[in-house]
Amino acid sequence: MRKLKSKYELLRQKVFIIIYGSNTLGGRLFDIILLLIILLSVFLVMLESVQRIDKVHHEILFYGEWIITIFFTVEYILRLLCNKKPLSYVFSFYGVVDLISLLPMYLAFFIPSTSFLVAFRALRLLRLFAILDLMPIIGQQSHLKLALKASKNKIIVFVYFIVIVSIVLGTLMFLIEGRENGFNDIPTSIYWCIVTMTTVGYGDLSPATPLGQFIASFIMIMGYGIIAVPTGIVTAEYAGVKKNNPELDAKKVCPNCTTFIYDLNANYCYNCGTKL
Amino acid sequence: MRKLKSKYELLRQKVFIIIYGSNTLGGRLFDIILLLIILLSVFLVMLESVQRIDKVHHEILFYGEWIITIFFTVEYILRLLCNKKPLSYVFSFYGVVDLISLLPMYLAFFIPSTSFLVAFRALRLLRLFAILDLMPIIGQQSHLKLALKASKNKIIVFVYFIVIVSIVLGTLMFLIEGRENGFNDIPTSIYWCIVTMTTVGYGDLSPATPLGQFIASFIMIMGYGIIAVPTGIVTAEYAGVKKNNPELDAKKVCPNCTTFIYDLNANYCYNCGTKL
Amino acid sequence: MRKLKSKYELLRQKVFIIIYGSNTLGGRLFDIILLLIILLSVFLVMLESVQRIDKVHHEILFYGEWIITIFFTVEYILRLLCNKKPLSYVFSFYGVVDLISLLPMYLAFFIPSTSFLVAFRALRLLRLFAILDLMPIIGQQSHLKLALKASKNKIIVFVYFIVIVSIVLGTLMFLIEGRENGFNDIPTSIYWCIVTMTTVGYGDLSPATPLGQFIASFIMIMGYGIIAVPTGIVTAEYAGVKKNNPELDAKKVCPNCTTFIYDLNANYCYNCGTKL
Amino acid sequence: MRKLKSKYELLRQKVFIIIYGSNTLGGRLFDIILLLIILLSVFLVMLESVQRIDKVHHEILFYGEWIITIFFTVEYILRLLCNKKPLSYVFSFYGVVDLISLLPMYLAFFIPSTSFLVAFRALRLLRLFAILDLMPIIGQQSHLKLALKASKNKIIVFVYFIVIVSIVLGTLMFLIEGRENGFNDIPTSIYWCIVTMTTVGYGDLSPATPLGQFIASFIMIMGYGIIAVPTGIVTAEYAGVKKNNPELDAKKVCPNCTTFIYDLNANYCYNCGTKL
Repeated sequence: MRKLKSKYELLRQKVFIIIYGSNTLGGRLFDIILLLIILLSVFLVMLESVQRIDKVHHEILFYGEWIITIFFTVEYILRLLCNKKPLSYVFSFYGVVDLISLLPMYLAFFIPSTSFLVAFRALRLLRLFAILDLMPIIGQQSHLKLALKASKNKIIVFVYFIVIVSIVLGTLMFLIEGRENGFNDIPTSIYWCIVTMTTVGYGDLSPATPLGQFIASFIMIMGYGIIAVPTGIVTAEYAGVKKNNPELDAKKVCPNCTTFIYDLNANYCYNCGTKL
Repeated sequence: MRKLKSKYELLRQKVFIIIYGSNTLGGRLFDIILLLIILLSVFLVMLESVQRIDKVHHEILFYGEWIITIFFTVEYILRLLCNKKPLSYVFSFYGVVDLISLLPMYLAFFIPSTSFLVAFRALRLLRLFAILDLMPIIGQQSHLKLALKASKNKIIVFVYFIVIVSIVLGTLMFLIEGRENGFNDIPTSIYWCIVTMTTVGYGDLSPATPLGQFIASFIMIMGYGIIAVPTGIVTAEYAGVKKNNPELDAKKVCPNCTTFIYDLNANYCYNCGTKL
Repeated sequence: MRKLKSKYELLRQKVFIIIYGSNTLGGRLFDIILLLIILLSVFLVMLESVQRIDKVHHEILFYGEWIITIFFTVEYILRLLCNKKPLSYVFSFYGVVDLISLLPMYLAFFIPSTSFLVAFRALRLLRLFAILDLMPIIGQQSHLKLALKASKNKIIVFVYFIVIVSIVLGTLMFLIEGRENGFNDIPTSIYWCIVTMTTVGYGDLSPATPLGQFIASFIMIMGYGIIAVPTGIVTAEYAGVKKNNPELDAKKVCPNCTTFIYDLNANYCYNCGTKL
Repeated sequence: MRKLKSKYELLRQKVFIIIYGSNTLGGRLFDIILLLIILLSVFLVMLESVQRIDKVHHEILFYGEWIITIFFTVEYILRLLCNKKPLSYVFSFYGVVDLISLLPMYLAFFIPSTSFLVAFRALRLLRLFAILDLMPIIGQQSHLKLALKASKNKIIVFVYFIVIVSIVLGTLMFLIEGRENGFNDIPTSIYWCIVTMTTVGYGDLSPATPLGQFIASFIMIMGYGIIAVPTGIVTAEYAGVKKNNPELDAKKVCPNCTTFIYDLNANYCYNCGTKL
């Protein structure tokens, strides 16, 4: 009995290393397979939405979906079983993402009207950040993260400013252009104003009166200039963070004198000459 | 009599603290209620403009409007009464905003044709900057304000440059494309040129002749490149202001050695060790 | 005779100071009048192009045009007469601008088909940079000018890169989308590609095939990212120029110790205490 | 025999200097002629695509094409013959470009359906970077190259982020707007989302439902703000690279004291006074 338990424990550890780790061959292989299946799963949902393809290949798509769903279900259960603290996984960021990309398929089976929730599967793509090892670039301790954290409040004020200006100017444009030019109500006008200020400019709505065009020109130039503000903030904060935290750019640390090494190809510490 | 006056004085002070302050529970509560009613009032104006909703719920919207108007009227009178220098409020920024968001409703009652002025109510949203405590970010002594102040003249030159270029090139495009391609007159062509230079690009007007498309391409690339200028200016000024005024980023000041503390969570001054 | 000549010389000097200078009351007044007439002249050309207005007020506009033309002609002659080196004016930047905004009106009188050249009058708006005293901001010795000069070559490479990419991808899109989707020929496709890369996006042409939309998405993301390059260059050069030439920001120079004073309101040199 | 070989060797060297070099008069002349023929060749392909022109001048264009093709063929062979290591040319960047701009013409002669490959000829325009001597600005050791190299990973993450967000929000918009508003399938919705996030905004697709417009507004503001990130990264990296590698801006190096000279017009080393 004890031997069996120990055997199970050994297996659990092995599976844990494969699923959660990425240093071993098995772990790396698992990551790549997971990556491919995630891409395939997103691709399937896309194909299904294309009527021309869905009409012809409906059955293949249907079975493909279920095979992928079963794979992800098994993966989810394994992640729970091999983890000593399964709850820490369940409530982790990726745990929540895995669950809400998994549930819709089952839900849609019982309640067909919820089939649109399958779209949430695309969220699983976020796991690619972990698989492709991009976390050092956007992770907690990256320059980018620190800079965005430092700019956060200013960016919020900026967004807030755009929204208020859009409400005021949108209301004004509704009064100037009116229903005959497609500005049917204030929410639509506000939508138009955001389309204009962000320089998107669909053209589904565009001012037709001279006064409307004049105010639109004003909004456009304002929107064009405003973009300088968040850019300036992020840039300055990023440069500041970069200057104050040079160690985040370091590729290695010298084991002898703890000097930061910035050159990935360095073989010797440039400070004390220790072989790295 | 004197007792009554002192009682009134006490009440006045209490109301003043609630309305103008935000440190007490009452003051905080008042701020939140005001915030909600402002949002509700803007929301009502929007709903009213949507014909489908207005047709069905006209009465509810109408009474809602009046209840809100009465609330703001009472608020305005209270602000006047409880303030020792009521005129300083009347001519303050928010005092003016409050008045021009209040008057239209009464005006529209007597002169129905002025009902569109109700739109100015959206200006009251600006008060949210005060309620949400965003002033330190955009206030007089913020990095952002100082940077924008330093960039002001350069940004004006930049806007001015865009306008002149738009007039010259807009006139040119009117001559090239002409009335048959929708460039009906020079003001319209200038409007098109601004739409293009700011990369908004509605597409309500677009060049149809090869020469017009060539010049449009030139305008687009120019506009795309020009955006670099205000961004560069704001960024450089912001970085400069940030470097020269590090104290504006400080979260606390050590009461013992007056060192600036940048970490919000610091419990001890990192310079002299005094408990903060 | 000699007295007359000296009288003429005195008059010449007076007129010179009024027309070319801006320090005296007369010079300032002349500048303001010139400014207003330039604006009026541009405004008249615009109004003339609006058929609705031109139909009704044709005569007023016509006479207005001629009055302004005569004013500018007199101004041009005066500038020549009162200047000791009239040729230096004729071949100066503003001299050329003045001439090419003046000639078209006379040309159009004799050769009606050249009436469109009147549009060049808008160029005269550039004189506002001098009148509004904006030259210190964009002049030879300004940070902006130095930064743009330092970035020039890099910006040219960037524009060149956009053009080449547009030609290659435009050709590709012509092959993919073809004539049935409006991509009539390669120049049109290149025009579309520039419209897309600069994020203008009129929508007069847009890809209709899945492959075309895929490549368009690629072009868009590329164009969206590329904007970072000129912005980065201008910003970094501007910051560098600003750092290396702090004296260009100086408002005054202390006459005693030649310290640069950056505060416009300073009454005393902050270094040696000399009254400024 | 040996004399003939030596004569051939001499000729080979002469041709090599003319074709590969640009310091001699012949080399410079060859570069300019090559530049003009490349431009002409791209221009011809464009003209051919314009039906109106092709119909009238088909023969001229056809013969022009073949003359240019023969010129480039001769050039390619000469480049091979006069080079001691012809393979190093064949597999160099420009060698590959030359081949893939040359082959399509011959291919199209035998297999008419491949005529569209002629478009690749536009790639030859890249040679202009070498001819116009722009390499120091974008070459291996330029600030720009180093900055882009340093930003590369972060820009990739950023592009990746845009793509994921587009997939998630595109799917959502497909569910909200649906086929009746033109959002025919998920790939089309993703295409729309990229069009919106990059602020291109064709308007071939635009949200029609209130909820769709609300989410679109959110996407637009997000896209408008996100542009700050790559710009901030490139700017900060560029500024850093510029600071750490000032020698790359140097125009000359003093032969006596090896000081970097930044002023192109300097005649004497500002450090030791040596004549440059």
